[in-house]
Amino acid sequence: MSDFEERYDDTLEKLKELASEKRYNDLKKEFSSLYPTDIALLFDDMPEEYLPVMFRLLPKETAADVFVELESDSQEMLIRGFSNTELKQILDDLYLDDTVDIIEEMPANVVKRILKNSDPETRQDINKLLQYPEDSAGSLMTTEFIRLRLDTTVAGAFDVIREKGDDSETINVCYVTDEKRHLLGYVTIRTLVLAKDTSARIGDIMDSQVISVNTHEDKEIVAQDMSKYDFDAMPVVDLENRIVGIITFDDAIDVMEEEATEDIEKMAAITPSDKPYLKTGVIEIWKSRIPWLLLLMISATFTGMIITSFEDALAAYVALTAFIPMLMDTGGNCGSQASVTVIRGISLQEIEFSDAFKVIWKELRVAVLCGLVLAVVSFGKIMLFDGMLMGNEGITPTVAAVVCFTLFLTIVCAKVVGCTMPLLAKKIGADPAVMASPFITTIVDAMSLIIYFQFAKLMLGI
Amino acid sequence: MSDFEERYDDTLEKLKELASEKRYNDLKKEFSSLYPTDIALLFDDMPEEYLPVMFRLLPKETAADVFVELESDSQEMLIRGFSNTELKQILDDLYLDDTVDIIEEMPANVVKRILKNSDPETRQDINKLLQYPEDSAGSLMTTEFIRLRLDTTVAGAFDVIREKGDDSETINVCYVTDEKRHLLGYVTIRTLVLAKDTSARIGDIMDSQVISVNTHEDKEIVAQDMSKYDFDAMPVVDLENRIVGIITFDDAIDVMEEEATEDIEKMAAITPSDKPYLKTGVIEIWKSRIPWLLLLMISATFTGMIITSFEDALAAYVALTAFIPMLMDTGGNCGSQASVTVIRGISLQEIEFSDAFKVIWKELRVAVLCGLVLAVVSFGKIMLFDGMLMGNEGITPTVAAVVCFTLFLTIVCAKVVGCTMPLLAKKIGADPAVMASPFITTIVDAMSLIIYFQFAKLMLGI
Repeated sequence: MSDFEERYDDTLEKLKELASEKRYNDLKKEFSSLYPTDIALLFDDMPEEYLPVMFRLLPKETAADVFVELESDSQEMLIRGFSNTELKQILDDLYLDDTVDIIEEMPANVVKRILKNSDPETRQDINKLLQYPEDSAGSLMTTEFIRLRLDTTVAGAFDVIREKGDDSETINVCYVTDEKRHLLGYVTIRTLVLAKDTSARIGDIMDSQVISVNTHEDKEIVAQDMSKYDFDAMPVVDLENRIVGIITFDDAIDVMEEEATEDIEKMAAITPSDKPYLKTGVIEIWKSRIPWLLLLMISATFTGMIITSFEDALAAYVALTAFIPMLMDTGGNCGSQASVTVIRGISLQEIEFSDAFKVIWKELRVAVLCGLVLAVVSFGKIMLFDGMLMGNEGITPTVAAVVCFTLFLTIVCAKVVGCTMPLLAKKIGADPAVMASPFITTIVDAMSLIIYFQFAKLMLGI
Repeated sequence: MSDFEERYDDTLEKLKELASEKRYNDLKKEFSSLYPTDIALLFDDMPEEYLPVMFRLLPKETAADVFVELESDSQEMLIRGFSNTELKQILDDLYLDDTVDIIEEMPANVVKRILKNSDPETRQDINKLLQYPEDSAGSLMTTEFIRLRLDTTVAGAFDVIREKGDDSETINVCYVTDEKRHLLGYVTIRTLVLAKDTSARIGDIMDSQVISVNTHEDKEIVAQDMSKYDFDAMPVVDLENRIVGIITFDDAIDVMEEEATEDIEKMAAITPSDKPYLKTGVIEIWKSRIPWLLLLMISATFTGMIITSFEDALAAYVALTAFIPMLMDTGGNCGSQASVTVIRGISLQEIEFSDAFKVIWKELRVAVLCGLVLAVVSFGKIMLFDGMLMGNEGITPTVAAVVCFTLFLTIVCAKVVGCTMPLLAKKIGADPAVMASPFITTIVDAMSLIIYFQFAKLMLGI
């Protein structure tokens, strides 16, 4: 809330003051008027020493909600200070998928303590969830959901929900299975509440057109399917179509946000990280950036070599050098426009490899239009501004023509390369997002120079 | 679903065949096994002439769901063919926010027909929703939700839900107000279903810590708040805290996806559009790209002028020219890494303008580390590869030193400029995403050349 955000710094100061003065009753009062997510934000920004005391002041029913939203170093610190009873209490109140997320961030000895303090059944479920590959639907799902039978009545369904509801992450959708847990359909809470006849069989009112994902499906695909179908929750099944868990929309939203950030980072030649920038150390940031910079710098050797091999031409027509940056930048910009558009289209599943020809044909026409406009404008600009206004004698109509022909051809090549590379990456199973601006720029730079010097040789007779 | 996607082309062919052979019963059977979202995708890819017939074959209960998901040209075409009774039928089955979305895409005469065929109350609501500014919470919300009173009992609440539930977009959360519609709290359907005492007052079991947004709040902020608090639905209130509508999570997901795409497009110097790439015409794509290309090309004039003014230095040390692309590209890459990281941080509300000094200090240290590594590696590469291996006589240790000093200083400047520009843009109310690679590159290009030639003058005594 913007309301809360505006008051954030004041609230933080107030909490610090109350904590340092040990005014615990006033702190309790403060907490009761705050939302758990916001309390967690405040806790993460408080001096560490206050954390254990303040956490114990939280109302019992919000403690788990706050705990889940804390940064993992705060969580670790709290767990280390918890008695076994306190730890058990929190673990009981957490949903399984959240427990697993927390465990994945903790050092081994903390994990051991968490598992020791979980009841045997939960421990088994945690271990199962921990085995799913990272980024799979299995690793994202929770195993706590409402399962109904075909011949349960609507009234019976409400009994099941009342019994299991407290432990289920959502009751908004209930899943219908046979006794072997094969997924047969689903009923929403809306259907149950609006049902006129409470003795109706679930099998008769359920929706049997149920869409599910497999445990090993990529979580990005799952999130996109949920967004496409507007699902509250997505059932996850094993290879025999037995339901093993569900993924709720809030987790899907987080995945979509993470994936967009990752794509953006990759497009800017950064190794993605899931830590917020301000909490990431300098060395860590450096590590995520330096490999790409090195690689790209080394690959720029080629452009250097191309220029070196045309040293004589440049010595004869010094004016040519001045246009190198403009040609390279325009080519690079055209290439990134095409590649970024295609990369995003692939991410959103709008563009497939089978669309390659459609895409190339479209980019080719866009490139010709862009190239014509830029070449004509550029010719005018060079003759009028660089030539007449600045009085640069090296600039003749032929030199301007060399620049503009190069510009046109570079743009066409850049757009085609830009749209092709991400599709090729996708085809060979690589990540299309890596084929964004920096890589395209390096390729287009070399291309534009070769084109430039060929035109120069041809038209200026060097 | 990946399942469905694999069968997509086959299904499309089959539908076309059945439609051309007028096998309507078989078509009906096909439709009954498909999900509305998927039917809409198939319809959009079918030849237009089959659309009206096929639409009328849909089961009554899915027709509206399919209609909502169609592209707007298919919707328009269908509406033009509908009888008034058919149009009324569809409009009755649509949620208000969807109707408004459709109206916003239709030409005036179609809008008139839609309004004429809505009942007076709905028409009034539509007109109200149409008045909210684009991209505001008001324009995104629906006015159909469940409203409860403080002194209603749980049993009474279920009566209200059963009465109004069919018309409400969600029953998962119900909002509690006084008789003047002031928002006092909310109850989830879970609380209602799990309530042990059905005679309990809503006022006693509701959660009064209710977070809401104002009708004029930016929809991107609303979506992010919903993601932050894991909300199913967000209540929208007017200036007097009277609830006027709700925004459901599925609309929030769409907003987040759109906003990520827009940011990515702006970062690549493309004017954002909300049409999928493959459905966008060549001219439209061209229009979204050419202004930026022109602007950036013209601004590259500066780099050209800088080079021209150092023509003599370049003529004396031809070897210097060969390193221009490498210096410019590395500077550009370093700058975009910093700017894109900060832009994304701003979008996700992780970075504020007040963090500017923290950000600059962090980038400065990262830049020094990156600069040192790249400069050292570059010096070695130039001496060993370009100098010894390629036998380029122009390369002396002093020339290599000029390049590496330039590299280091360029990287430091690029990172600082890269992280500062988006923050400044945010401060003056401009869009930070525009300050991504292309703009940073143009600035950094000029900077790196000036640094380069100053070092050359100083160290080579030109």
